Amino acid sequence: MTFAQRLHRLREQKKSLLCIGLDPELQKLPGPLQTTPAALQDFCEQIIAASAQHAIAFKINFAFFERYGAAGWEMIARVREKIPADCIAIADAKRGDIGNSARHYAHAILTELAFDAVTVSPYMGRDSAEPFLEYTNRGIFFLGLTSNPGAKDIQLQDVAGTPLFMHVARLVQSWNRAGNCGLVAGATRPQTVRQIRTVAPDLPLLMPGVGAQGGDLQTVLAAAGDTNVLISASRSIIYAGSGADFARAAAEEAGRMHDAMRAYFSADDLPDKTKRS
Amino acid sequence: MTFAQRLHRLREQKKSLLCIGLDPELQKLPGPLQTTPAALQDFCEQIIAASAQHAIAFKINFAFFERYGAAGWEMIARVREKIPADCIAIADAKRGDIGNSARHYAHAILTELAFDAVTVSPYMGRDSAEPFLEYTNRGIFFLGLTSNPGAKDIQLQDVAGTPLFMHVARLVQSWNRAGNCGLVAGATRPQTVRQIRTVAPDLPLLMPGVGAQGGDLQTVLAAAGDTNVLISASRSIIYAGSGADFARAAAEEAGRMHDAMRAYFSADDLPDKTKRS
Repeated sequence: MTFAQRLHRLREQKKSLLCIGLDPELQKLPGPLQTTPAALQDFCEQIIAASAQHAIAFKINFAFFERYGAAGWEMIARVREKIPADCIAIADAKRGDIGNSARHYAHAILTELAFDAVTVSPYMGRDSAEPFLEYTNRGIFFLGLTSNPGAKDIQLQDVAGTPLFMHVARLVQSWNRAGNCGLVAGATRPQTVRQIRTVAPDLPLLMPGVGAQGGDLQTVLAAAGDTNVLISASRSIIYAGSGADFARAAAEEAGRMHDAMRAYFSADDLPDKTKRS
Repeated sequence: MTFAQRLHRLREQKKSLLCIGLDPELQKLPGPLQTTPAALQDFCEQIIAASAQHAIAFKINFAFFERYGAAGWEMIARVREKIPADCIAIADAKRGDIGNSARHYAHAILTELAFDAVTVSPYMGRDSAEPFLEYTNRGIFFLGLTSNPGAKDIQLQDVAGTPLFMHVARLVQSWNRAGNCGLVAGATRPQTVRQIRTVAPDLPLLMPGVGAQGGDLQTVLAAAGDTNVLISASRSIIYAGSGADFARAAAEEAGRMHDAMRAYFSADDLPDKTKRS
């Protein structure tokens, strides 16, 4: 079973497109927890336990843990272990280096930490991607068009008549021999999601930006034209509550997004392209 | 004192341009050491102690340590502490993420681990660079043109009549308000180093690829037209010996490169542009 097929199966089973982003910050943790860095792990584990029923993926943002050095890396390992088998564990690490180094990054994330998927920067090209692509049953999400303002500085620059992110989308589509590639495409720019789909019809799209960053579910799904996507929300879910019941509040917010997503699994106007395979 | 000035002072003091890359692999370690991952730390510390007299920088490649997870991060911290004050400690981490995440990566590397400099991917643009740029007395080396074959996939793509790496070089030059920016420019493509200098006259260039990757010192210095560079060599130095005297062998190889570099500090045909400031 390819990564794309696994994702498809999870979507159909749970009728969800939800990826919950774990970007915990100590000073934003609910009152009862706000003590030591170790609280980050507790916080994430409680969110996972309460919300996993609504999600098909959890995305751990490495930056928020690396901030605590070796202790943070320990927490990544512990939190990853708590992600249940019916959810994809995504390492949001955005690594990118020449082959020799990339091989070690891939090993650390996909072998040692046993993540199901990882985000990778495409800037250094094919041989920097190769050590990740060799993991044929995992998901490799390359940065395509990100949701931040600075995307215009490089990703939106014109390359031979199309923006660079379109060039990247074509490249990644060509690397997708094993059904293990995906693209990060910010939900804050739905018109570009439509463009990406014209050159990367089969790639799962990891779309941050719905929720706190202002993207809208219906708009981005219409733009994608299918449900071969992961809609990633972080702050709007993990900080939904600020008291002792934060995990329940997070689960409720995840449940609301899940309810909105269920509708798309019966709608005829948004056929899931992966059903064809 | 800006980062560029600190670099200039070190060059003049030591008459060296040498940056030693620490990319240790367990299976390549000299016989007497090849036991546990902890040997990597011992190996690096011995190399540093023996070779620091010849170098003005050490570059720790995070991938080779992250391979060992939290233990690897501990080793990074310990090895970094051993880099003496008359050498720049560079974190070769190639991070790149939106502002909120970048802030944590910058904190981890520049505050917690107290590196003097770091490599950063420019792919996500200005706001992803900003949290690093705020460290005005450190060095932020952005990936410009890397030395690997895959550089052609994105970095060499044409943007408005010039290759993307030239666009990146211009951007980074414009970000260099505090004398804290630099560019990674592979020594394997000297003609492009010359191009980069036309738009980024003041940026220190971190140039990997001299030595094992085949770049030639004289050629790249002629291309740069000045000595505002760090010539990075890794395997050719750290694996110079394979026995118990590996540290001495590494120091000898570093010394050979240092000798070749000394010549450029008296040559009139390669004026150091930073002397003007």
